[in-house]
Amino acid sequence: MSSVIGKNIIISVFGESHGEAIGCVIDGLPSGVALDMDKIDFEMKRRAPGRDKTTTPRKEKDKVRILSGVLNGVTTGAPLAAMIENTNTKSGDYKNIMTVPRPSHSDYPAFVKFGGNNDVRGGGHFSARLTAPVVFAGAVAKQILAQKGITVGAHIKRIGDVTDSCFNKNEVTASELERVSSKMFNVIDDGAEAKMRDEIEKYRLDQNSVGGEIECAALGLPVGLGGNMFDTVEGRLSQILFGIPAVKGVSFGLGFDFASADGKAVNDGYCVKDGEVKTLTNNNGGVLGGMTSGAPIIVNVAIKPTPSIAAPQPSVNLDTMENATLEIKGRHDPCILPRAVSVVEAAVALGILDITME
Amino acid sequence: MSSVIGKNIIISVFGESHGEAIGCVIDGLPSGVALDMDKIDFEMKRRAPGRDKTTTPRKEKDKVRILSGVLNGVTTGAPLAAMIENTNTKSGDYKNIMTVPRPSHSDYPAFVKFGGNNDVRGGGHFSARLTAPVVFAGAVAKQILAQKGITVGAHIKRIGDVTDSCFNKNEVTASELERVSSKMFNVIDDGAEAKMRDEIEKYRLDQNSVGGEIECAALGLPVGLGGNMFDTVEGRLSQILFGIPAVKGVSFGLGFDFASADGKAVNDGYCVKDGEVKTLTNNNGGVLGGMTSGAPIIVNVAIKPTPSIAAPQPSVNLDTMENATLEIKGRHDPCILPRAVSVVEAAVALGILDITME
Amino acid sequence: MSSVIGKNIIISVFGESHGEAIGCVIDGLPSGVALDMDKIDFEMKRRAPGRDKTTTPRKEKDKVRILSGVLNGVTTGAPLAAMIENTNTKSGDYKNIMTVPRPSHSDYPAFVKFGGNNDVRGGGHFSARLTAPVVFAGAVAKQILAQKGITVGAHIKRIGDVTDSCFNKNEVTASELERVSSKMFNVIDDGAEAKMRDEIEKYRLDQNSVGGEIECAALGLPVGLGGNMFDTVEGRLSQILFGIPAVKGVSFGLGFDFASADGKAVNDGYCVKDGEVKTLTNNNGGVLGGMTSGAPIIVNVAIKPTPSIAAPQPSVNLDTMENATLEIKGRHDPCILPRAVSVVEAAVALGILDITME
Amino acid sequence: MSSVIGKNIIISVFGESHGEAIGCVIDGLPSGVALDMDKIDFEMKRRAPGRDKTTTPRKEKDKVRILSGVLNGVTTGAPLAAMIENTNTKSGDYKNIMTVPRPSHSDYPAFVKFGGNNDVRGGGHFSARLTAPVVFAGAVAKQILAQKGITVGAHIKRIGDVTDSCFNKNEVTASELERVSSKMFNVIDDGAEAKMRDEIEKYRLDQNSVGGEIECAALGLPVGLGGNMFDTVEGRLSQILFGIPAVKGVSFGLGFDFASADGKAVNDGYCVKDGEVKTLTNNNGGVLGGMTSGAPIIVNVAIKPTPSIAAPQPSVNLDTMENATLEIKGRHDPCILPRAVSVVEAAVALGILDITME
Repeated sequence: MSSVIGKNIIISVFGESHGEAIGCVIDGLPSGVALDMDKIDFEMKRRAPGRDKTTTPRKEKDKVRILSGVLNGVTTGAPLAAMIENTNTKSGDYKNIMTVPRPSHSDYPAFVKFGGNNDVRGGGHFSARLTAPVVFAGAVAKQILAQKGITVGAHIKRIGDVTDSCFNKNEVTASELERVSSKMFNVIDDGAEAKMRDEIEKYRLDQNSVGGEIECAALGLPVGLGGNMFDTVEGRLSQILFGIPAVKGVSFGLGFDFASADGKAVNDGYCVKDGEVKTLTNNNGGVLGGMTSGAPIIVNVAIKPTPSIAAPQPSVNLDTMENATLEIKGRHDPCILPRAVSVVEAAVALGILDITME
Repeated sequence: MSSVIGKNIIISVFGESHGEAIGCVIDGLPSGVALDMDKIDFEMKRRAPGRDKTTTPRKEKDKVRILSGVLNGVTTGAPLAAMIENTNTKSGDYKNIMTVPRPSHSDYPAFVKFGGNNDVRGGGHFSARLTAPVVFAGAVAKQILAQKGITVGAHIKRIGDVTDSCFNKNEVTASELERVSSKMFNVIDDGAEAKMRDEIEKYRLDQNSVGGEIECAALGLPVGLGGNMFDTVEGRLSQILFGIPAVKGVSFGLGFDFASADGKAVNDGYCVKDGEVKTLTNNNGGVLGGMTSGAPIIVNVAIKPTPSIAAPQPSVNLDTMENATLEIKGRHDPCILPRAVSVVEAAVALGILDITME
Repeated sequence: MSSVIGKNIIISVFGESHGEAIGCVIDGLPSGVALDMDKIDFEMKRRAPGRDKTTTPRKEKDKVRILSGVLNGVTTGAPLAAMIENTNTKSGDYKNIMTVPRPSHSDYPAFVKFGGNNDVRGGGHFSARLTAPVVFAGAVAKQILAQKGITVGAHIKRIGDVTDSCFNKNEVTASELERVSSKMFNVIDDGAEAKMRDEIEKYRLDQNSVGGEIECAALGLPVGLGGNMFDTVEGRLSQILFGIPAVKGVSFGLGFDFASADGKAVNDGYCVKDGEVKTLTNNNGGVLGGMTSGAPIIVNVAIKPTPSIAAPQPSVNLDTMENATLEIKGRHDPCILPRAVSVVEAAVALGILDITME
Repeated sequence: MSSVIGKNIIISVFGESHGEAIGCVIDGLPSGVALDMDKIDFEMKRRAPGRDKTTTPRKEKDKVRILSGVLNGVTTGAPLAAMIENTNTKSGDYKNIMTVPRPSHSDYPAFVKFGGNNDVRGGGHFSARLTAPVVFAGAVAKQILAQKGITVGAHIKRIGDVTDSCFNKNEVTASELERVSSKMFNVIDDGAEAKMRDEIEKYRLDQNSVGGEIECAALGLPVGLGGNMFDTVEGRLSQILFGIPAVKGVSFGLGFDFASADGKAVNDGYCVKDGEVKTLTNNNGGVLGGMTSGAPIIVNVAIKPTPSIAAPQPSVNLDTMENATLEIKGRHDPCILPRAVSVVEAAVALGILDITME
């Protein structure tokens, strides 16, 4: 168990869903960066639940309190610690999961790993609620990246069978990323929102849940960051992204579509444009040999259906070691994609900030 | 640039394709493990080129010389260093890539990163030849894992449009993994080999190349290894796997198919079997909440078409900063999948060994 | 700047002397450990100021609030986060140090490093106040170590010219360590306290300060922990110990007295005692080849005189770049040894806990 | 056991005293640095044995072979691997230490740690011979540091009761460091060499050994490198220095003399000199708050007497678990200080290079 990551910018995340507070410490930030708290609050709102019927009705006030590292709104260079007090927690809802683990959740391996001592209320430290500090840290990272001319943005590429357009891998612009990220439901095509909401509602009414895919882009990175062999941009971003609950796949550029592609069709040739070397296409998603190529970074993230569904499910009773049927009573998102977009953006921003600090 | 990875078992890989030697140091190995050198040699042969027409005709004798860490065939607990002398290198073939970078290769970002000082002959440290020490280290790891009852095996899931069967995610056996890994062309269905060879040949004759996908399984891991948030089995394996040239995507279990799946269909319910908790299915690929669930680990790896193709390609001349056409003369695999299987197996074995040492 | 340390148990310390709060996150703790909060409070009191005239009259209530990682008094295995709200801060006292750096303090290099953005009030993140979270974390570590049969204890070996007895390097007992650690003024000889207090008072009345040395012992470690070359017990403990402000030297066993010693006199021979291998002496301080030898670990820590003295001192005005005379008005310990003992104990306990987790 | 160290420049050391070869991999070096092999050879000679009667008569040809990372004498930016073949090894001399551990050596804890599988011939991986790769890596580091205007040099401060002068802590010059380092017996006062050789000879004739202290200085570092709390210059240098066999103490500036010092006497005041801030004295050894102050770094290293002495010593027979008397037959330095100076310099150079890469 390690909730610490980073080489130059080290994030340590703490908290349990129904404990006193959640938060993080960000170590290694540059000093002298003026933080726009409104922007941070906006990012927190993107992730927060209770906005509408596509998300759980839990209304957490994800009010961030900064404990250190910021003086008069400017980073001091000392570790930036932030906490969010937990409120509005209904622990009773989760009582039976102590003995009957939820399928496809962390419950059973966590029970074995921690010998039953872990805080199971709301998933404890494994709760998706722990992505709130990640979003906070990512919001800080995005502001520092902005000063370096780097923009990060993401959108829902698909939910079930409903798809959005994709970013133009080679020519997506910062303003397009900002346009998409500034929405509360992050899609490129305005019309995709209603269709995706309908898709989610369909699964909700069926006591079911649905997965999806998020596409994230990052622009403005210099050529040659990261590196072979084990310090690749891909590997470093993956390690953070797989820290987001429900992420089951990470790919770059064409990703798994490369498997049925041929070199003539997908090799990214070069040209000289305005005196600079540019790729003609960007099927590699901005990473070559583990290093930034100068083209936009394009990363795809596969997200599984929320494992918590209302329908009865087969499980076991860990006390009696007999088969059991589990009915989850709590409040759960039938699809986490709408909220997860900000988390993916945050994770990518944190990873890229770490890489740029070398 | 860091070619070092691992927390408990730390691998440091060195070498350049046409330099004096390549190799690695493996730090943190347990003492007292008798190494079967024949098994190691077999793994080296699986990766080595020149076996048949699906691979490059370069005939490297990947003869490993162990420099330290082994005494009378048994590990001493001191760092295990191994080297492979480079022979049969034709540096002349690569002369023009110093000024004209190969599309979709590391050449251009490496040129920028290293200011032209990097060894470009054969790709230098970015060459796929550097996977030889990884395979060696993985072969050592597999023998240590075997003593813990853990088996790792992989196969070519598809090349272009030709597919193999998949492992039974929940019930694949160690003997099945061993059967598949013991082949020189690693497929589950014996009949798939000929079809895949034909597919590769088709692209080769067209001066083209083709990508594919590898599926790797690991059996016998105890429940609860790894962990949330940033120490996930998925993240740790990904960081190593993305160190393999041409890998562009990593996913677990259903991977990107989760995006169009629903919870009722894919949640992995539990049952009690022979007094133990088992999952009824294994769509999560053996990892829940970042931890091992007890089910087999199933990881999918997307591999892009070999970027080095014989057909002319658009590039630039970095000296004159003008557009240029590149014709690659060297000897290259039209598809690296047949050789890459052993590398993926090795990377997964190394990652899992590191995780089991906690 | 990194306030993060540890391989298996990772501590991230945050806070600034006059900011909102200080604290830490401890990642990687075992689950199921019942914490005795009274023992933790006692450790916090040992370090806290304002106890008597040997220490600064600032009366901070170092009340620790645990935010996560503990449920019903038992560790959950999730990161343990703790915070201490800052109160009773008189920032006015430190106003002039923004332009006139205090000699032998971090002020000047911190000014250069952080471009004047760091929080200088009370020393900011460089304040000795940041040792409070270290003591908290160490108090937790000591309780976990106690379950493994490991005891850590320290005492003031000398202040200026006044010395205490030393631990018997080879035969010091756990009960002796507990006896010494349970005092509020940690000396072996009861009579040493009054002499040391007199010594400190002498320097205080002279607007001066005085240094000293702390000796710390750890008992009950199994043989063979740690290791050559860069994972030595000595190196790992040093890295934490040098994180304590004012520590300028760390040595083991005879330490610098080895320089004038000869092998015949100081080699630690072996004997068999009760069927076990024991050292006849322990001049090496329990570490051989970087590994634990089974004998008590004996570490010596040199602490410099408090740099903040009331007497006028030569400095510079960083605004005008002219020489200046500094008169420090604040409240400062003329000798930090009485409070620093608990910090050294905590640092050693944290380091040893990390080493034992392998 | 980890023989890997560094954050930006990562060194992995391998080899066993009587194995096939020893060496190291240096990962993260900048590209484009022309290496002067004569300077590297000179450093290797300083450490090599067999120069005269103060050292063991073993005549190892420490001929370094560079395997990767250097092309046409210039670093490529890829990992630099180097190996030294082992020759002239008389393994027979060490046969009885398998059962009778040498006092004050790593033998016994290594036996327990590795279950008897470690290579005990010549101390195996714990041998001081493993400092040869460290000296090589340090020689590379010194050349890179020289390009940044940083000079590192060390001398024997004392051996037994014979002392050399000390560096002027605040005003030592690069040319003085170079003068001292260029000697084969590194002392400041030319006259000290003969006295120290006599002292060593005295102990040798008595079948005994003697310890000493080395002082190392580093000039030219910018202000503000390193940092509080656990990333201190002191802590990082210590972790490397304690990797050198026989090092038992590390201190900075006045070190343990701070214990009896007072603030008025030892505080390092500031002045403006040629428009720059300078310290009036440098009792802190160039480090304040864990950061470089701009004054020379002064580090003191305590080295214990060579544990291998010719006189009979009390030990135990690990087979029979009975007391035993050990007579060491091999060839051993009665004092390692003359050879250890280059190792300390190398370790400090490596640590500082790592710190300057941030």
